[in-house]
Amino acid sequence: MASLKLHGLPMSSCTTRVMICLHEKGVEFELVPVDLFTAQHKQPDFLSKNPFGQIPVLEDGDLTIFESRAVTEYVSKKFKDQGTDLIRQDSLEESTLVKIWAEVESQQFNPVINPIIYQFFVAPLQGKSLDQAIIDENLEKLGKVLDVYEEKLGKTKYLAGDFYSLADLHHMPYIFYFMKTPWAHVVNERPKVKAWWEDISSRDAFKKVAEGMKFGDN
Amino acid sequence: MASLKLHGLPMSSCTTRVMICLHEKGVEFELVPVDLFTAQHKQPDFLSKNPFGQIPVLEDGDLTIFESRAVTEYVSKKFKDQGTDLIRQDSLEESTLVKIWAEVESQQFNPVINPIIYQFFVAPLQGKSLDQAIIDENLEKLGKVLDVYEEKLGKTKYLAGDFYSLADLHHMPYIFYFMKTPWAHVVNERPKVKAWWEDISSRDAFKKVAEGMKFGDN
Repeated sequence: MASLKLHGLPMSSCTTRVMICLHEKGVEFELVPVDLFTAQHKQPDFLSKNPFGQIPVLEDGDLTIFESRAVTEYVSKKFKDQGTDLIRQDSLEESTLVKIWAEVESQQFNPVINPIIYQFFVAPLQGKSLDQAIIDENLEKLGKVLDVYEEKLGKTKYLAGDFYSLADLHHMPYIFYFMKTPWAHVVNERPKVKAWWEDISSRDAFKKVAEGMKFGDN
Repeated sequence: MASLKLHGLPMSSCTTRVMICLHEKGVEFELVPVDLFTAQHKQPDFLSKNPFGQIPVLEDGDLTIFESRAVTEYVSKKFKDQGTDLIRQDSLEESTLVKIWAEVESQQFNPVINPIIYQFFVAPLQGKSLDQAIIDENLEKLGKVLDVYEEKLGKTKYLAGDFYSLADLHHMPYIFYFMKTPWAHVVNERPKVKAWWEDISSRDAFKKVAEGMKFGDN
C-alpha cells in the first residue's frame, strides 16, 4: 500500500500538477477522490486537512500538505535521490533559477491564463455565458508573458536553464487545457514556446497524467 | 561598498518585501533607485535584468534575481548562518510548513488584497475613480482568508508555527498599506490576526523599512 495519499481529482489542474511531479520522482501514491459535487471539500474532515477547502492535499504520515506548489517542492526534496532532479537543491545558483521561473509561473502566467480557462471550461457548467472581454484582455496579457518565454527559450532549452525543472512542470496542467481552446495559436505561433510545450508534454510522467485530464471533453 | 545591489524603490511593496528580509538577515546592500516616472524599468538595460520590467531586482555578483519571493528565498539560503532563520531549511517538516504558508500568501492572500491596494492608492494617481464594487468583493474574500488565519494563529504564534518566517514576512508590505485604508477593521476585528500584525510589525527589521513606505502619504 502506498504511504502517500493524494486527495484530489485526476482532471483537476492543481491535482495533476502534483501527480506529474510524483511520477517524475517515481513515487507511489494513492489518489483519494474528493467529491466536489457533494462539496466534500467544504466539510469539516477535509477542512481539517486544508482550511481553504481546496484540492489537492497530500498526506505523508503525520504531515499534511496543501497548496500544489508547496506539495511539489516537498516531494522534490523528500525524494531528492530518485527520479528527475526537479529543484537542483545542490546548487544555490541553479535552485534560484528554478525558483525565479517557478515564481514567474505563479505571479505572471497563472493570473492571466486562469481566467481564460475558467471562462472557457467552468463558467458554462455554472450556467454563465462566456465573457469575451475577460478572455480578450487576458489573451493579450498571456501573449506578452509568452513573448518573454519565447526569448528565454531561445537562450536555454527550458525556463530555468538547460534542464527540466518544477519551473516548467508547474505550467503543464493549464497549458494542456489551454491547447484545447480556440486560442491555442497563442502558443503555436511562438516557435520556441511551441517546441518547449511539445518537448515537455511528451515526457512519460506527463503522458500518464494527461490520460485522466478529461475536463471539458464532453 | 555593499556587494549586493537591490534595484527598486523604498515605497514599493515588492521592493520592501526584499528589504525587510535583508535587514532580518543583517545583510548590507545598496538600494539603486529605479525611476518609474521615466519608465526606466521598461528600458533595455533594466529589461536585461528582469524581462518583465518590474522591480525589485537583486544583483549579487554574476547572479541576477527577480520576483520578490524568489529573492527572499535566495537571501535566506545564501545567508543561512546569520540573522533570523526565515526558511528552516534544516528541517524538511518546518521548511515545508513555511512553504505552505508562503504559498497561501501568494495564492490566497495576495490576489484579494492586491486589487484593494490598487484601487485605493494607485487608481486615483492614474486619474481613475475608485471602483467600490471591486473593493467590496475583495474585502469579503479577504475576510474569509483572514478567518482561516485567525484560527491558525489560535494554534501557533506565527503562520508556519511558533517561529517567525518568510511566510509571515511576505505579508507585511500589503498589510502595512492596507492598515492605512478605511478598511483596517477587517484586520483589527480579528484579535489573533491583530496581535500577530502588531507583533511582526514591531520587529526592528520592519521598522527600518516602514520609515520609507510613504506611498499615499501626500
